Amino acid sequence: MLLHTPAASSSVPVATAAAVSSSTSQESCHRLLASVSSSVFSASPSPVLRRFLNTQQLSLGVGQQHLRIAHHPVCPMFNLIGWVDVGSSHSEDIRFVTDTEDLLNVKATAVVSKSALISETPAWNSLKNHLGHINKTHLRDLLKDKDRCEGMIKEYDGVVVDFSRQRVTHETLEKLLALAKEAKLKEKIESMFNGEHINKTEGRAVLHVALRAPRYEQIFCDGKNVVPDVWEVLDKIKDFTDRVRNGTWVGVTGKPLTDVVAIGIGGSFLGPLFVHTALQTEPGTAKSSKGRRLRFLSNVDPVDVACALNGLEQETTLVVVVSKTFTTAETMLNARTLRAWITSALGSEAVSKHMIAVSTNLKLVKEFGIDPANAFAFWDWVGGRYSVCSAVGAVPLALQYGFETVQKFLEGAWSIDKHYHNAPLEENLPVLLGLLTVWNVSFHGCSAMAILPYCQALQKLAPHIQQVSMESNGKGVSIDGETLPYEAGEIDFGEPGTNGQHSFYQLIHQGRVVPCDFIGIIKSQQSVYLKGEIVSNHDELMCNFFAQADALAYGKTREELRAEGVPDYLIPHKTFTGNRPSLSMLLPTLDAYTTGQLLSIYEHRVATMGFIWGINSFDQWGVELGKSLATRVRTQMNAARTKGEPVQGFNYSTTTLLNRYLKGKTQLLYPEPHDVFPSDIIPGTDNVVYEKVEQ
Amino acid sequence: MLLHTPAASSSVPVATAAAVSSSTSQESCHRLLASVSSSVFSASPSPVLRRFLNTQQLSLGVGQQHLRIAHHPVCPMFNLIGWVDVGSSHSEDIRFVTDTEDLLNVKATAVVSKSALISETPAWNSLKNHLGHINKTHLRDLLKDKDRCEGMIKEYDGVVVDFSRQRVTHETLEKLLALAKEAKLKEKIESMFNGEHINKTEGRAVLHVALRAPRYEQIFCDGKNVVPDVWEVLDKIKDFTDRVRNGTWVGVTGKPLTDVVAIGIGGSFLGPLFVHTALQTEPGTAKSSKGRRLRFLSNVDPVDVACALNGLEQETTLVVVVSKTFTTAETMLNARTLRAWITSALGSEAVSKHMIAVSTNLKLVKEFGIDPANAFAFWDWVGGRYSVCSAVGAVPLALQYGFETVQKFLEGAWSIDKHYHNAPLEENLPVLLGLLTVWNVSFHGCSAMAILPYCQALQKLAPHIQQVSMESNGKGVSIDGETLPYEAGEIDFGEPGTNGQHSFYQLIHQGRVVPCDFIGIIKSQQSVYLKGEIVSNHDELMCNFFAQADALAYGKTREELRAEGVPDYLIPHKTFTGNRPSLSMLLPTLDAYTTGQLLSIYEHRVATMGFIWGINSFDQWGVELGKSLATRVRTQMNAARTKGEPVQGFNYSTTTLLNRYLKGKTQLLYPEPHDVFPSDIIPGTDNVVYEKVEQ
Repeated sequence: MLLHTPAASSSVPVATAAAVSSSTSQESCHRLLASVSSSVFSASPSPVLRRFLNTQQLSLGVGQQHLRIAHHPVCPMFNLIGWVDVGSSHSEDIRFVTDTEDLLNVKATAVVSKSALISETPAWNSLKNHLGHINKTHLRDLLKDKDRCEGMIKEYDGVVVDFSRQRVTHETLEKLLALAKEAKLKEKIESMFNGEHINKTEGRAVLHVALRAPRYEQIFCDGKNVVPDVWEVLDKIKDFTDRVRNGTWVGVTGKPLTDVVAIGIGGSFLGPLFVHTALQTEPGTAKSSKGRRLRFLSNVDPVDVACALNGLEQETTLVVVVSKTFTTAETMLNARTLRAWITSALGSEAVSKHMIAVSTNLKLVKEFGIDPANAFAFWDWVGGRYSVCSAVGAVPLALQYGFETVQKFLEGAWSIDKHYHNAPLEENLPVLLGLLTVWNVSFHGCSAMAILPYCQALQKLAPHIQQVSMESNGKGVSIDGETLPYEAGEIDFGEPGTNGQHSFYQLIHQGRVVPCDFIGIIKSQQSVYLKGEIVSNHDELMCNFFAQADALAYGKTREELRAEGVPDYLIPHKTFTGNRPSLSMLLPTLDAYTTGQLLSIYEHRVATMGFIWGINSFDQWGVELGKSLATRVRTQMNAARTKGEPVQGFNYSTTTLLNRYLKGKTQLLYPEPHDVFPSDIIPGTDNVVYEKVEQ
Repeated sequence: MLLHTPAASSSVPVATAAAVSSSTSQESCHRLLASVSSSVFSASPSPVLRRFLNTQQLSLGVGQQHLRIAHHPVCPMFNLIGWVDVGSSHSEDIRFVTDTEDLLNVKATAVVSKSALISETPAWNSLKNHLGHINKTHLRDLLKDKDRCEGMIKEYDGVVVDFSRQRVTHETLEKLLALAKEAKLKEKIESMFNGEHINKTEGRAVLHVALRAPRYEQIFCDGKNVVPDVWEVLDKIKDFTDRVRNGTWVGVTGKPLTDVVAIGIGGSFLGPLFVHTALQTEPGTAKSSKGRRLRFLSNVDPVDVACALNGLEQETTLVVVVSKTFTTAETMLNARTLRAWITSALGSEAVSKHMIAVSTNLKLVKEFGIDPANAFAFWDWVGGRYSVCSAVGAVPLALQYGFETVQKFLEGAWSIDKHYHNAPLEENLPVLLGLLTVWNVSFHGCSAMAILPYCQALQKLAPHIQQVSMESNGKGVSIDGETLPYEAGEIDFGEPGTNGQHSFYQLIHQGRVVPCDFIGIIKSQQSVYLKGEIVSNHDELMCNFFAQADALAYGKTREELRAEGVPDYLIPHKTFTGNRPSLSMLLPTLDAYTTGQLLSIYEHRVATMGFIWGINSFDQWGVELGKSLATRVRTQMNAARTKGEPVQGFNYSTTTLLNRYLKGKTQLLYPEPHDVFPSDIIPGTDNVVYEKVEQ
């Protein structure tokens, strides 16, 4: 009998569950479970059970099932007390384990959870067996098959995706779609759009798609259509940003606020930075941002403060503090830093004119000194890394480019959202991309993926998707808390081509196999075309886009090298194995709309992967431990700096390095803190203020 | 009998080698080899042979040996014709293979090469066996051992490295040092510093260390001390950049050249960008760059041209074209683009005043219109990715910060160079770091490493090291051309902490194991310290530096979570396995000197890994195929655009996407090319010139 640690559960009373009222004997437990299981596995579960099953994304009747005994989670006296492994059959030899002894005194609610991991299903095994067949193929040959390739070039709303250079046949695709069916992908997508609490560990819906919904759409969360809420905030953003941009809203000295510093970290930074970088060189949006500057301040490093403030004046600067809870350590320290910078020049009354917030915690916003009227809300169903379409991105982007640009961006994202929601899986771009990545990661054993946009304006795509993907899917347990026997998640990295070609492509061509996303733009934002050149500069760039994918697929054989007269001793070094998977994506242009499309494709691709792997792609418990340990260090650092107390409570190594650090600037004591901050230091001016450091 | 493809070889006459003069019979070949082998494996090889053995880093008597028959490589009639596998014994059952038929007509020189892969040695196997022992340990326990930790904190010239959070014991370190001995690491380092042609496939020495050598040092390449050459160029750089900076050298209209655009890609871009980013916020260097701007133009994308030129005026701009051969496609097209930009405003005579070159190809420099007197040389013993200390980095950095800064940067690098050359392996920072990475990659199976500087000014460290490492070690064959049975190279990526913490650290804590480099600075370049805060901003940043390493090492157990009252269903999600390796590096400051140190540590660490893996870390054949395929696409694109010729010669997929691309801007024809280039478009102005695109 297996004893599992209880896993994620949100239990719902099950009509047929018996109460454990008089005995903890094995026998009574058996009865309880038997009664549950017989109901659960009956052909037509009760309506209540069915509702529960839908909510929990259960798939019954496949693989190993677990029955779980839980107490009701919302009532403190009911705690999850254990669960049982019923194996794949549902006979009477069910056994039950509890680690509490007071089973007698509480009412039990039996709930059912499917803990069958996807790796234990026939669909997974079928792919595993199929791998041997694929390993006998070479892309060089697969690309000869026109029918195969024709079926692997898909288009939706102007976006063309060619995945004929993935190591798949039509049979592979069928098997991947069977895996999707097994994982209940369609139902999970449906649950997401239906506002069900699919982020189970945090008990939240996942509705960033609602941020992009047109005004007339209805998307429900807990029985309420949230689209009007979204548009209330969007309307408020339009109103406010219009006033800033047209000079109705001015700073305390009456000057227009032409510069914006957006303070935020993680999702409150990388998404908006990606979009900003994509639009700043596009002629239309460049024009609409004329005379304006947008900076981001993310890292708690004072060097980042210096960079963000370089060349700005308080009088003409608007600061946007982005933090859902208004407690993010880095963001709030940077917010206090910029508040000090603003008030040092303009007095404390300037805060309400020069600082605004994107937050839901109006109490803390007000305490900070920001007028709650200038706080823009979002909702707990918007995860940080999925928040660029909320006020998080909309406020700074509308300030820089005007609200109309934000609206186009949202429309682009929504176009793909609809497609993800409605298109059949075999035509569904994010689904196909997600399945192909699962194929590469879980079956071919690829641990990383390269994102290679042939467009300099997309240089921040990879850092943003790195977060979206690695924070979403870098998990070690299933959504039900079971340790995964397979790796979920992958390492995402990338630089724009052609820059990457002259950097890490060597490894990609001749070292490890790293599946690549090549992204190309048909009409460039900018143009250079010189007399006497064979091609325009953008055509030259795109020659590389086309060439690299085929280079990876075909490689170069010893025979080809020999025929070219390459000396024998160089042949092994100049040989390319080829057969390296990639996919190519072509966008008609790069503007606000297509940037939204691109974002949504990647977001939903990542969700698809998580849905298949059976993990929760929407929590991020892994970031908590570092935070709490940092708090311990902070306390010690303060004690050492203010009272000269010795560092204690750490291991030898940490103690040694911490002492080294503290002694490295011994004159930095904290008896009388006072405001110090850098300004306008790049290029160097004489008003740089240092930490008072002496040796 | 094994038939190998002949591998890299630089043959040297061996005194005892017999000439093949009259017969290609098996018998005569046997005799030839027997005579060689008997000499090679004798206890005391002849002086000539010994010299050869030293040169070739041979290690005889261990593992599988290969004897190779080659003709002299410098004489065109002598080509490598084959090699033989003699196994581990050196008896008479040697067999010989040749794929040429004219053995009769040439003189043969027999050379010997050790092709034994490191993975076949006892030292490697010993580590493999040792892994089982290490897998039973947990860093939580290893960190309790003070003696162990004490021995794993090393310091050199102010740089402190703590590798106590690597999954190693003293025994592991001994075994890694034995591996280094087996791989002849010390001798290979010596060969590098001695200017031997260790880049065998290109027949070149690898002497970037000579770029940092003080004037009085002697470093020989092919019998010549190269240090005077290095200093001749450095003196010329000082002279030229001083004149630009002090306004002696001015543009054609008499205005000082305050802005610099450095055109280069790969190593001609990432290294200089890394150093520039590290120094721009440092108060001393910031001051010395006051009133000056340095931009980089790398990508052939016209969007990058627009970014680089944004806000610049031709009259005050100096363009540095960086390309060793002056033929790099991207760089030269960008150079022609900026030449058009300069001459469009200032006439063609302005080129000699506004454009200079870093190149060795003076002929092409002159043809381009640049005065060869304004070309700064480097040498074929400087690889692109190791070239930031040559004129490649020195020219733009000296223009921006003054030559004195460049000199300090070189001194910092040289400090580590000396250490790498002379320190015993067990105290040698780059060696230890390299060995530990080999341990993580080759034994623990880690495919990636994260570079996490807790310093925003180091934000371009990871992209630079990504190139240095992945282009150097992303190889599939040994230096002798043998297919590797193990993966060499790893994926390097990273963002500054704390930004990374809010991005991909989730995966690092709870997903895949990714060894991390944490880099901290004791005295920050900038300072923020606010009234009422517990710690200064930089202390706050560094709290995270200290906390993250321990969080990865210790993790958090179920028991700890339970004791904290975490509800059962959340326990699996909030559990951290810990035992995840990292290393911590502390630098006293971040300035030109320590930036040089950091660079050199990483460069030599990468070299160490390549020396252990037995690969050539200094060539990059893997970038060639994409280039040649791009040429094919370019020809087709031109034919389609100028003559409307149909796309041909590609597979269905490429043809389809290429047609889609070409038709996406059908009005872009090339009948009468004329200069078009963007200028000053961010923020948008009205003088943006588009490609003439119509649907």
